[in-house]
Amino acid sequence: MPRRYIQELTHQETVDQVFLAANKQLRPNRNGQLYLQVDLSDRTGALSGRLWNAGEGDAARFDDGDFVRVKGTAQLYQGSMQLIVADIQKADSTTVDWDDFACLTPADIDRLARRLAELLRGVKVPALRALGESFLADEAFMARFTRGPAGVKNHHAYPGGLLEHVVNLMEVAALIAPRYPNLDLGLLLYGCFLHDMGKIEELSSDKGFSYTDAGQLLGHVAQGITMLDAKLAQAEELLGEPVPEEIALRLKHMILSHHGEYEFGAPKLPMTLEAVALHHLDNLDAKLHNFAQLIRDDSNPESRWTMYHPNLGRKLYKGEQGGRGEGERGGV
Amino acid sequence: MPRRYIQELTHQETVDQVFLAANKQLRPNRNGQLYLQVDLSDRTGALSGRLWNAGEGDAARFDDGDFVRVKGTAQLYQGSMQLIVADIQKADSTTVDWDDFACLTPADIDRLARRLAELLRGVKVPALRALGESFLADEAFMARFTRGPAGVKNHHAYPGGLLEHVVNLMEVAALIAPRYPNLDLGLLLYGCFLHDMGKIEELSSDKGFSYTDAGQLLGHVAQGITMLDAKLAQAEELLGEPVPEEIALRLKHMILSHHGEYEFGAPKLPMTLEAVALHHLDNLDAKLHNFAQLIRDDSNPESRWTMYHPNLGRKLYKGEQGGRGEGERGGV
Amino acid sequence: MPRRYIQELTHQETVDQVFLAANKQLRPNRNGQLYLQVDLSDRTGALSGRLWNAGEGDAARFDDGDFVRVKGTAQLYQGSMQLIVADIQKADSTTVDWDDFACLTPADIDRLARRLAELLRGVKVPALRALGESFLADEAFMARFTRGPAGVKNHHAYPGGLLEHVVNLMEVAALIAPRYPNLDLGLLLYGCFLHDMGKIEELSSDKGFSYTDAGQLLGHVAQGITMLDAKLAQAEELLGEPVPEEIALRLKHMILSHHGEYEFGAPKLPMTLEAVALHHLDNLDAKLHNFAQLIRDDSNPESRWTMYHPNLGRKLYKGEQGGRGEGERGGV
Amino acid sequence: MPRRYIQELTHQETVDQVFLAANKQLRPNRNGQLYLQVDLSDRTGALSGRLWNAGEGDAARFDDGDFVRVKGTAQLYQGSMQLIVADIQKADSTTVDWDDFACLTPADIDRLARRLAELLRGVKVPALRALGESFLADEAFMARFTRGPAGVKNHHAYPGGLLEHVVNLMEVAALIAPRYPNLDLGLLLYGCFLHDMGKIEELSSDKGFSYTDAGQLLGHVAQGITMLDAKLAQAEELLGEPVPEEIALRLKHMILSHHGEYEFGAPKLPMTLEAVALHHLDNLDAKLHNFAQLIRDDSNPESRWTMYHPNLGRKLYKGEQGGRGEGERGGV
Amino acid sequence: MPRRYIQELTHQETVDQVFLAANKQLRPNRNGQLYLQVDLSDRTGALSGRLWNAGEGDAARFDDGDFVRVKGTAQLYQGSMQLIVADIQKADSTTVDWDDFACLTPADIDRLARRLAELLRGVKVPALRALGESFLADEAFMARFTRGPAGVKNHHAYPGGLLEHVVNLMEVAALIAPRYPNLDLGLLLYGCFLHDMGKIEELSSDKGFSYTDAGQLLGHVAQGITMLDAKLAQAEELLGEPVPEEIALRLKHMILSHHGEYEFGAPKLPMTLEAVALHHLDNLDAKLHNFAQLIRDDSNPESRWTMYHPNLGRKLYKGEQGGRGEGERGGV
Amino acid sequence: MPRRYIQELTHQETVDQVFLAANKQLRPNRNGQLYLQVDLSDRTGALSGRLWNAGEGDAARFDDGDFVRVKGTAQLYQGSMQLIVADIQKADSTTVDWDDFACLTPADIDRLARRLAELLRGVKVPALRALGESFLADEAFMARFTRGPAGVKNHHAYPGGLLEHVVNLMEVAALIAPRYPNLDLGLLLYGCFLHDMGKIEELSSDKGFSYTDAGQLLGHVAQGITMLDAKLAQAEELLGEPVPEEIALRLKHMILSHHGEYEFGAPKLPMTLEAVALHHLDNLDAKLHNFAQLIRDDSNPESRWTMYHPNLGRKLYKGEQGGRGEGERGGV
Repeated sequence: MPRRYIQELTHQETVDQVFLAANKQLRPNRNGQLYLQVDLSDRTGALSGRLWNAGEGDAARFDDGDFVRVKGTAQLYQGSMQLIVADIQKADSTTVDWDDFACLTPADIDRLARRLAELLRGVKVPALRALGESFLADEAFMARFTRGPAGVKNHHAYPGGLLEHVVNLMEVAALIAPRYPNLDLGLLLYGCFLHDMGKIEELSSDKGFSYTDAGQLLGHVAQGITMLDAKLAQAEELLGEPVPEEIALRLKHMILSHHGEYEFGAPKLPMTLEAVALHHLDNLDAKLHNFAQLIRDDSNPESRWTMYHPNLGRKLYKGEQGGRGEGERGGV
Repeated sequence: MPRRYIQELTHQETVDQVFLAANKQLRPNRNGQLYLQVDLSDRTGALSGRLWNAGEGDAARFDDGDFVRVKGTAQLYQGSMQLIVADIQKADSTTVDWDDFACLTPADIDRLARRLAELLRGVKVPALRALGESFLADEAFMARFTRGPAGVKNHHAYPGGLLEHVVNLMEVAALIAPRYPNLDLGLLLYGCFLHDMGKIEELSSDKGFSYTDAGQLLGHVAQGITMLDAKLAQAEELLGEPVPEEIALRLKHMILSHHGEYEFGAPKLPMTLEAVALHHLDNLDAKLHNFAQLIRDDSNPESRWTMYHPNLGRKLYKGEQGGRGEGERGGV
Repeated sequence: MPRRYIQELTHQETVDQVFLAANKQLRPNRNGQLYLQVDLSDRTGALSGRLWNAGEGDAARFDDGDFVRVKGTAQLYQGSMQLIVADIQKADSTTVDWDDFACLTPADIDRLARRLAELLRGVKVPALRALGESFLADEAFMARFTRGPAGVKNHHAYPGGLLEHVVNLMEVAALIAPRYPNLDLGLLLYGCFLHDMGKIEELSSDKGFSYTDAGQLLGHVAQGITMLDAKLAQAEELLGEPVPEEIALRLKHMILSHHGEYEFGAPKLPMTLEAVALHHLDNLDAKLHNFAQLIRDDSNPESRWTMYHPNLGRKLYKGEQGGRGEGERGGV
Repeated sequence: MPRRYIQELTHQETVDQVFLAANKQLRPNRNGQLYLQVDLSDRTGALSGRLWNAGEGDAARFDDGDFVRVKGTAQLYQGSMQLIVADIQKADSTTVDWDDFACLTPADIDRLARRLAELLRGVKVPALRALGESFLADEAFMARFTRGPAGVKNHHAYPGGLLEHVVNLMEVAALIAPRYPNLDLGLLLYGCFLHDMGKIEELSSDKGFSYTDAGQLLGHVAQGITMLDAKLAQAEELLGEPVPEEIALRLKHMILSHHGEYEFGAPKLPMTLEAVALHHLDNLDAKLHNFAQLIRDDSNPESRWTMYHPNLGRKLYKGEQGGRGEGERGGV
Repeated sequence: MPRRYIQELTHQETVDQVFLAANKQLRPNRNGQLYLQVDLSDRTGALSGRLWNAGEGDAARFDDGDFVRVKGTAQLYQGSMQLIVADIQKADSTTVDWDDFACLTPADIDRLARRLAELLRGVKVPALRALGESFLADEAFMARFTRGPAGVKNHHAYPGGLLEHVVNLMEVAALIAPRYPNLDLGLLLYGCFLHDMGKIEELSSDKGFSYTDAGQLLGHVAQGITMLDAKLAQAEELLGEPVPEEIALRLKHMILSHHGEYEFGAPKLPMTLEAVALHHLDNLDAKLHNFAQLIRDDSNPESRWTMYHPNLGRKLYKGEQGGRGEGERGGV
Repeated sequence: MPRRYIQELTHQETVDQVFLAANKQLRPNRNGQLYLQVDLSDRTGALSGRLWNAGEGDAARFDDGDFVRVKGTAQLYQGSMQLIVADIQKADSTTVDWDDFACLTPADIDRLARRLAELLRGVKVPALRALGESFLADEAFMARFTRGPAGVKNHHAYPGGLLEHVVNLMEVAALIAPRYPNLDLGLLLYGCFLHDMGKIEELSSDKGFSYTDAGQLLGHVAQGITMLDAKLAQAEELLGEPVPEEIALRLKHMILSHHGEYEFGAPKLPMTLEAVALHHLDNLDAKLHNFAQLIRDDSNPESRWTMYHPNLGRKLYKGEQGGRGEGERGGV
């Protein structure tokens, strides 16, 4: 039976197929009875699933990030489609058709990891090369770096999301650098690679994405500094001489200033060309990815507007036909 | 005699050569005697020139934006090089070696204007094409658009600066668009073209760059809306049918939201993918251009830091050798 | 049977009479069953009506802004009176006693529209007069201007509310102008008239008050500029000569700056006497109208305080006897 | 010899006439020599006077607020007219033609004081009347209240300025109250009278306007509460019964909330209709007075713009002819 | 039967014992049926109690601040323990074992009141001593001061909380003063005593803690000024001479500036050493008390983090073992 | 000849004695002639010294932080005392009477360093003790830690200022901890010690106090994390087992959150009891020290107010007699 995508579901339609699970919660209703709530997604969007009268046993059957097979009925509530779940079980990820989902396939992750190595090795400055190698050779690090998310919600909040965000940033940096001749592309590429590295310590991906204790108390900025200090020591061994102070300072400064403003938790404002470039490119990539996802996943296909997003202080405009009419309005 | 660039001048050195003038002011000293102060630049930087005991006659000999021939003596004050002027006269721009200056040559402007037309005409959507033609065919508009500055200070504050900023934005947009498949490049390119268009009304370039009355009372955002309304009417005539409402709305929204936040004078927050892309690309281009210029023009070549810039809330780091050591630290 | 006003209703009282409807919503309860919620008002206040187990059919029987006949029972919940609805139907507006409601009668609207024309025609400056006539002669414009609301909630959010707000502003401006001799009353009166004009494009009044797409993407400030540009062209035809640039600038500046601060979406700060007067008078009128309405409509007549209003950051003090004890505490 | 008004003075013109003095300062120049600087005004504007090589003796000859006879020469510096002083002496205020100055004449002050009494006595609520009488009967209070300034700079910063501001506020309140039927005019009039009363303790007018120690440590808001507490006790004696708690609370609340926002030093937000009316009327009156004065006193009559005022974050637009072209652009 | 402390309760456990009640509310559920919700606490924490199908009669049986005997069943909802109440009655406070509760016993209050008198009388400056006596001799004042709370929620929100906060502040002030030799400890101790005194007028403790009308319209800062004015007059009688102006000003300034910043409702910024010390000590004591209480009362003993507290913008870290492992990590 | 303290100097008095130098600058006057400006202080205050017609040679004779012998004349300018310097030479610090200066003597520094060791060793937790020993045994670290300033201006900006600030914080923490039983004093003492440790890398004390490149690009917060990481590794060797993760996290969290708010450059908000205590104690100590110093050093002894301090947004109140009248107004 061909898959019915989330965007195609209609009121009272019966459903029996695989979704990607996230944000699992066991919650009581007003009468004190527990129900299980979980976000279910495929590549066309996301909806909220609810299993009434649930217990700890139901919640224990799967984790956030798992593929789950769900039986139930679609229902339209307050203009949003929901899925009233009758049964939910962990699915075998080897039988899943990855094309049905927005997240990255193992093959995608391999491809991106190879591209990351290629971009890092393309920089000819010996100290940067040595630093790159000391990361690439660290299998435990690479395993976590390539499978971690870039966030717990908003942009790139899925396995491999961090890698995808970082490689895309590096590609964009390489594309635009020729137009800004004073920009040191080697430094910028390494800044793109390092800036969110601390997230592999900040976020746990064991059971659903969540912050670790260390992540909440220290944050990925300070954690990234500690990680870079350790690798700089390794790089000096590889290199056989000290990493120039100037390079180490400029790399650390990019980590410390990439949030751009104090109010966003940056302990330093960008004070070099590469740091200011990194801040704006990071913002551009995160915002475009986030806006595109909010437009794609919005639960009301009838409306030309998404729901109001309080953290953005606005609705987003989807326009006609529930999205963008390519071919018709643009394209060079 | 070969030119002595500003970065090469030494204390007590005699000077007799051409500079680009800006920010001309006639000011009194403490004893009530007037002196003439003017910013003088070449492609290596800028310094402040002062003509003691000046009068209205001295000030009238040239305007901001003119090339001027200056005779005088370089002096180091408070760590900054200044030029004590003995004589200053307007220079003949046809005898100037444009390579000595950071501003655009007539040939640069021609090249950029051709590239602008090419980019606008590359968009295949009929309504956008018609709109583009209605601007390109308006010679008075194009003359002002290609020769105006993008600001009175900070980034691109020289003749042709607006054109240079806009074409660079469009090039960058075209480079990165393939990496963001939901982005409508046609709309985005026109948004880049239109977003600061109101500046040709906001800023006067007749005698030094300054705000017009209308510019101060209305601002380039509202002025751009009025200008776009007029051209949309012309485009409809060219097109023989109405410009789709959806396209007109999305273009106007980009003008209204490109400052990104209410506190920066944006009456609307970006609510479409193209508007959020435009805001971040505009910021990226303006900040990189501005930072590079502040680093290049900083008056103290000895220091690894620029002076403190209150509007940025920081100093910028120049690093060793008065700038960037290309070849050594980066380059892919 | 004489009407029982909302302020008079008591717990468990049976109700069968006409109310004005607003904010109609079909919402699910925790068990997934839909109910219809609607704000019901008369001239003494407002309460929330709820029809349990409702469906699309119930919601379709009337629109926001309609008079509705409601049968049901008043109930006191959490200190607030609610109305549990058994039946709700659209009422015939010709049989309604308009005195029972706070909104404007057709006769009120006529009176206010005549007063608007009178005030506009009282200004003797030819260019302003011509501009006024070009609006007054535009029947489609006047029909929408006189029947639109000034907002979707808060102050003057009912048909004719925009007209009432504008005429009151103009009256107040005319009263106080003699005390500020530098104030140009002609300009100020036209500024009062024009400042919120864009709201007839920003807000749709077809089915309940809501924002149009253009309203959300452009906003009434930019829409007002476009509308004024068009009318200035008509006024020049009427006038037979150009509208003085100075007048056009000052009028547009009032539209652009009337929100007073960047953070409230004003692209310009008030820079003329008339613009600063308009901003403060607009604020005064809107706040007094809004506060008076919140005090009148507060759902708990027992309390000397209204509920907490998060957008105002405060409760309002009603004082003793559920409101103001005129005659007793004031009156000149 | 007819007076030459400040707006008429030309470069190098010899001056010998009376001005009003303010902001007297003895300052050193760069060479450590002292000079005397003082603001000199008449009803057409203000300019800065400078006496070179001055000493304590020169400074002691007059105080801020005195009329002074000045001999000297007008000079244009940086586009602003200044007065190089040769001699400055305190003038006899009985020989001054008060019409030449913007400040209030003794007759103005008498007239305003009578009007204040009339407005206070027009309120018929016994408790308010008794309170009013307890102030009006306090000659020491009335002497200070009628001769104090409303500020040390900005609006109404001259003897009688507080009285003028308060009476104007009361007049405007009485004019607009009929348009807001829920507003208790009696309370509002007393709120207008009392809101800035603490300024007679906050500001010293003995030798130039400046803050007292108590004014700086407590502020006119808290000082006003203490003053009102004392008068409420007197009013109860006059009345023979307690002032109703409700009235006392509402009056104090107006004093405490009249700055409108926490960030402007208001310990309370306005929570009654009269308090919100007072805040906005006070703002309107202060801003209109301040803007009109900045436009009138701007030192560069050639420009259509005032200088930039950092505390306002803007320039003001004066328009053509150094001010407003009444008769021509407005007037009903 | 030994008490089962709140931290020990398990899912489905039957409960029949005494708790301290707070925040009593009668609320409707979605079906319009009322239930009673009340916070129940002992010295180990707090949980929410709910009595389904409750009425006014149930709510009338006890008040906030009472000890209540509760029969019911503990239930775990959304990770938090709740108590489903079958019966709730006011308990006899004389039979309560006060050690089981975090609030102050009558004996605690006596001890703290004696310590307060001792600290006030330890200051040897006659004017301060006289002021202290005029408060200590006022039995009505002392009765309210010693039994009032310091807030309606957050820190010290229980009978005697104000006294406990004030005495602790004074003790801390006395401890640290020797390390800051310029600090006038006498003034600081009286500032600690007076700063929140207005809260006995601002908050009503008759039936649950809530704001009085005067409290909301005036606030404890202004109310404290009025109270201090009255006592200064009494102190002058006791003293037989005026209280030095300098002392009165410095005391009032501490009341007016203790919130430290305008945005927190302080009408004045601290401008004396004692005022800045009071502000920071007050903050330290309130924050430490509040954080400790949020950690102790957090409803999920399994987690190393408290719930998110929106007014603090963060979660708090409890660490391992539901709290602090004294003995192991610290102790000098 | 007995020393004439700065507070005693009178206009035109001849001076020949030793001062402490700071903020040395070579600056041009309006005529382009250089002069040397330097802040000179003793324990009674500070004043500005100026040597006219100075050159690089004069500036090279001493450094910031040196004792200098100055010959010259005191002059009163704009109400402030200045010193017109005729000759300035570095003085021999061994002949200086340290009691005449506010900075720390070598003996003070020894005493404070011993007390620091004592406090660190008083904590009995093995992991903290081991960490303490690893710092105390590092002579290079201790040399810099005990001689560095806590800032470049404001509080504790002199050699040993960091040590003095840290030891005082630890003393205050130990004094108040018994009053807050949930506070882990061991952790808090180490947090006090570590929180500003990065300043020895952030600030250079070689030639006047200034920021290092690394200090500006990374900041003392991130630098402190790197330093702590290195010492934690050493402590583990000393200890023979890992430092508990919980302890390391809580220490790092105190460093990262001690600025308390994002806007002050804190990448994390305080989330533990010790972190919130550290933030408020640090603020208390820094503000009291800073206010006391501004009051002591204010250049106008006649005034009861200091000059306006823009970074504080206020003047400070000195009160009568140029300071505090101990004995008279306070003292327990």
